Amino acid sequence: MSILEKARKLMAERGYEALLISSPENVAYAGGVSPPSQRIVRSRHAIVVVPAAGPTHYVTIQLEAGLVKRRATTDEIHVYQEFVEHPVDVAANLVKSIGAGSARIGIETSHLPAADVDRLRSRLPDALLSAVDEDLENLRLVKTPEEINTIRKIGAVAEAAAATAVAEASFGDTERDLGNRIAELYAAGGGDQLTMLVVGTGERSAEPNAPPTGKQIAKGDLIRIDVIGTMNNYYSDVARTAIAGEPDAEQRKIWTLLGDIRNRAIDAMRPGILSSDLYRIYSEAMDDAGLPKYHFLGHGLGVTLHEGPFISAIHDVRLEPGMVMCIEPLCLFEGRFGMQIEDEVLVTEDGCEPITNGGPLLKIGG
Amino acid sequence: MSILEKARKLMAERGYEALLISSPENVAYAGGVSPPSQRIVRSRHAIVVVPAAGPTHYVTIQLEAGLVKRRATTDEIHVYQEFVEHPVDVAANLVKSIGAGSARIGIETSHLPAADVDRLRSRLPDALLSAVDEDLENLRLVKTPEEINTIRKIGAVAEAAAATAVAEASFGDTERDLGNRIAELYAAGGGDQLTMLVVGTGERSAEPNAPPTGKQIAKGDLIRIDVIGTMNNYYSDVARTAIAGEPDAEQRKIWTLLGDIRNRAIDAMRPGILSSDLYRIYSEAMDDAGLPKYHFLGHGLGVTLHEGPFISAIHDVRLEPGMVMCIEPLCLFEGRFGMQIEDEVLVTEDGCEPITNGGPLLKIGG
Repeated sequence: MSILEKARKLMAERGYEALLISSPENVAYAGGVSPPSQRIVRSRHAIVVVPAAGPTHYVTIQLEAGLVKRRATTDEIHVYQEFVEHPVDVAANLVKSIGAGSARIGIETSHLPAADVDRLRSRLPDALLSAVDEDLENLRLVKTPEEINTIRKIGAVAEAAAATAVAEASFGDTERDLGNRIAELYAAGGGDQLTMLVVGTGERSAEPNAPPTGKQIAKGDLIRIDVIGTMNNYYSDVARTAIAGEPDAEQRKIWTLLGDIRNRAIDAMRPGILSSDLYRIYSEAMDDAGLPKYHFLGHGLGVTLHEGPFISAIHDVRLEPGMVMCIEPLCLFEGRFGMQIEDEVLVTEDGCEPITNGGPLLKIGG
Repeated sequence: MSILEKARKLMAERGYEALLISSPENVAYAGGVSPPSQRIVRSRHAIVVVPAAGPTHYVTIQLEAGLVKRRATTDEIHVYQEFVEHPVDVAANLVKSIGAGSARIGIETSHLPAADVDRLRSRLPDALLSAVDEDLENLRLVKTPEEINTIRKIGAVAEAAAATAVAEASFGDTERDLGNRIAELYAAGGGDQLTMLVVGTGERSAEPNAPPTGKQIAKGDLIRIDVIGTMNNYYSDVARTAIAGEPDAEQRKIWTLLGDIRNRAIDAMRPGILSSDLYRIYSEAMDDAGLPKYHFLGHGLGVTLHEGPFISAIHDVRLEPGMVMCIEPLCLFEGRFGMQIEDEVLVTEDGCEPITNGGPLLKIGG
């Protein structure tokens, strides 16, 4: 089923006459593209209007209409002029023009700011605005073959970029040298942008989301790398740990444990298993080793970095074929060091298939 | 006046007992830091609570508490555990604990999603939640000396990065080569990240917000570069145009015109002038030349890329000393070429002072 078919099935089940989709991720999902400045200038809304039947619509700022016209998957495109027209008004008029002005309309209440929802309500006083956020999240859980294809491609690029950059690095290189090389390889492989690149060496390897700095790699440093970026709207999220020289006994022990947890989780991933059961594998292993637990072992991946199914103690989602998840056991000791292995995995009909393949600790020589 | 003093003056004038600040830009402004994943994972709210008197508070996800503890400027820091506690609940409890549960509370309705505002309302049923968005925007119009200092530094880095990368480039280099070099220089100069880097050559120079691709620079290409990124929460936004070889007569004419508009706008910038009057300089010059107008000539710059004062036909803001603005005359011909010059300018007591100094068309040799 295509994304549009999935959306219309949902609309029929829930009685929506139109969806008004506004978050960057769902605009990209349902409309094929999210204009770059949508994420940077909050008032520059892009809105996809999906009626229960008939043509789909994309509302875009005039400034980025060229890009939207080239890449949008909707049937029609409507352009607004910044400062002059309000995108919410344009979308409300569209809803009226398709005869849904008094109908049930699905909106993203966990994205659309309160002031915009108030404005929409004043423009569509007879409509019933209803939160479709969770439904859209659920719609995205199982990926289409095209989505899987894109995630596979950029996941492989992220993995290779980290491995190559580490293989080429030497003591004395800075985190930034490593980061620049990863960025170069990521772009050359087709990545559109690195949304958040983590390169933390030494005690910075324990910092969550540490960007690369001018700090030099010294012998004995652990280096934690997380390659987070996108290609055609879809994320990669692959983390690797490297050692400059040789790991000590404690690091060796933790690495073995993390690899073991990763393998056991992947062995257990198949349709029908609960995400909370996967978390238990991690949780028990960390308890047995006397190590501090992280609050999740992994998460779904798609047009957002973190989406369902979450692998935590409190999320009970049954895995289904077509779900793509990150498994990321990690151990961060503030002020000392951090280790992490993160792989992307596709749930298949009879088990799962790793998209990336983390294994031994990567090494940086002298 | 410090940012906190400005906020409290506003609160006294408007009768707020507390501000509940939630947008990445205002959290950075009032709290000193915005955790990296706040912008990427929407549910990971960071919230700054400013009471009319007494200690200020920062509500952060546990995951990034280390960074927040190092960089936050608030008196207290409160940590929530993702999935387990809701940040809005933590903030609501704080509001109650400072005795403001039945008072007037300023919230950011153009940022905070409708679902979160509903949640806040249910947790604080006796409070009067009131939109403080515009007041906060106005508060940010005039920068403190510390803010100006940061903007100066990163503006100079952006300008030098573009100039150096162009000076080192040759025919046959790709947009990505140029982009990577700019990224390298930007980071080396202290930039935290490039939020949006534009490198468009040939007909791509006419695309707004074109990211660098593998396209090679050919003789006769115009190259439009816009260096948008941040250092310590503050943006740079500097655009330059380069020519590979020699410009043709039309390009030469347009460049002269854009430079002239830039100079005339800067000559006119002084306390008291209306932003719409600055726009008129641009508008009339473009009309005289028979060229298509852009809907603004410039904008304020700070913890966001685009903020007041906007220099457009419909924005009438009187300039004041301490405002920092970008002046960016541009001319984009879809499918042909685009030219732009963008400089950052500080309004001073008796005029203005350019922070960056665009001038001649940059050149790439053979």
